[in-house]
Amino acid sequence: MISLNSYIAVDWGTTNRRAYRIGPDGRNEAEFEDGKGILSLSDGGFAAAVGEIRERLGDLPLLMAGMIGSNRGWKEAPYVPCPAGLDEIAAALVWPEPDRSAIVPGASFVDDDRADVMRGEEVQLLGAVAAGLIGADALACHPGTHNKWVRLAGGRIAEFRTVMTGELFNLLKEKSILAELLHDKAEPDAAFRAGVRQGLKGEALTADLFSARARVLLGRLDRADASSWVSGLLIGGDVRTGTAGASGEVAVMGRPELTALYAAALDEAGFACREVDGEQAFLAGIAEIARRLS
Amino acid sequence: MISLNSYIAVDWGTTNRRAYRIGPDGRNEAEFEDGKGILSLSDGGFAAAVGEIRERLGDLPLLMAGMIGSNRGWKEAPYVPCPAGLDEIAAALVWPEPDRSAIVPGASFVDDDRADVMRGEEVQLLGAVAAGLIGADALACHPGTHNKWVRLAGGRIAEFRTVMTGELFNLLKEKSILAELLHDKAEPDAAFRAGVRQGLKGEALTADLFSARARVLLGRLDRADASSWVSGLLIGGDVRTGTAGASGEVAVMGRPELTALYAAALDEAGFACREVDGEQAFLAGIAEIARRLS
Repeated sequence: MISLNSYIAVDWGTTNRRAYRIGPDGRNEAEFEDGKGILSLSDGGFAAAVGEIRERLGDLPLLMAGMIGSNRGWKEAPYVPCPAGLDEIAAALVWPEPDRSAIVPGASFVDDDRADVMRGEEVQLLGAVAAGLIGADALACHPGTHNKWVRLAGGRIAEFRTVMTGELFNLLKEKSILAELLHDKAEPDAAFRAGVRQGLKGEALTADLFSARARVLLGRLDRADASSWVSGLLIGGDVRTGTAGASGEVAVMGRPELTALYAAALDEAGFACREVDGEQAFLAGIAEIARRLS
Repeated sequence: MISLNSYIAVDWGTTNRRAYRIGPDGRNEAEFEDGKGILSLSDGGFAAAVGEIRERLGDLPLLMAGMIGSNRGWKEAPYVPCPAGLDEIAAALVWPEPDRSAIVPGASFVDDDRADVMRGEEVQLLGAVAAGLIGADALACHPGTHNKWVRLAGGRIAEFRTVMTGELFNLLKEKSILAELLHDKAEPDAAFRAGVRQGLKGEALTADLFSARARVLLGRLDRADASSWVSGLLIGGDVRTGTAGASGEVAVMGRPELTALYAAALDEAGFACREVDGEQAFLAGIAEIARRLS
């Protein structure tokens, strides 16, 4: 084992990466973000991209999480099956440079009916529990291109489900019969909440989506409200899936404009929303993993 | 009223048009199809495009159906609300050239919760009833980019719902995290039927879609089967919506490769499938409308 007294934590995703120098006292001393996500790098480019991080933040060990451990990343880190806690994840690090740089594995969930994977969110979720930002048995929601709904039990990830809400909204916006209706930014307004109520019913999404166009053509929905209504429809269906069987409070971590939409949708569904700072949660999770290596 | 003794019937859609010369005995004497759908024509281009049809098939009155009557077509033909039968539709023709060319209106359905529109399918559906191809109280399915589920009652369109199944499959195939898995053609095979069974459960489509990728990553689904599984998932959800509360037989009219997929999905859901020739149904519907003008 190496001593991770001082180290660099990297949240390395598909399109971006964010790196932090963590000092001996656990403080975040310096950081930067850029667009060098894994898709911008070729197979041989990872060592150079890591060298660049060390040039900027210091010649320190690296602890990395996210898509950097996928089959398109630097070195594949096999998924840790649920229930997955910090101990299981710290024990399964993959080392592209022995004793110098480690990749945190993602988590997988499989049962008779379902199969799902995550990479990166596990550090934030388990970090949020460790830092007391959410309870050890919380229901958490992690909005983004691929929203994750995660049930934590005893401080470990017990079960989760990925929903392609953000990606589907973007696809519809870029290129579909609804594209011309989806220019405006979705806001957590009355039209959004009306869409949420429709989505919460759990009728067929592909039918409800087409109805947005019909509603506008027949004067039942203002064109200017279509974006919010469709966003509400998608997020309402997402919340219906994610909160099935749950009650009380949901922890939400994500970008503020997305968190506001999910908070409004959760409110419509009768849930309280606790907003969690994703960066703080990530650094807490990485610190817990580093502690387990010392 | 004009006498539509001989006339030209045109099924004029978004990307294609098909025109038929119908003789005094009701026989289809000549026809052609080309890519001059409404999206390929500018506002001023419709008269010329109609002139071209007459050059090829004769200087006859035109009876047109489909997107030619939309707000991007030659002249907008307002939707006829359900219940819509041949009488209501024939009474609401719009005439871009007085006594010379008429456009068949589409149909709309609105209730407290829903709003929906169709253009073109109404002629086929009502024509199929008139020709005895389907019963006066049938449940019909019209697969395509936008699949329509239609409940007929007393020979009129009582209710319908559009499902964006085909369009969503194409969007996912062209540009999504699933794109690389969806190269193969979907076939009505065992993987397709497994997808159908998942879709029939009515769980969140956006979650089930992401699971296709996870299933492949975790070795639960063969990469070569992903296209069929995802197609089955989408069509299964579609069939679940469309057949809710129904039993027995469903009439399906569409392209043979699509009809085969819907027939397999209906079989999984416990329904019999009656395949109907869409062209025959269209010509029967147009003939019924022409008869009402004489």
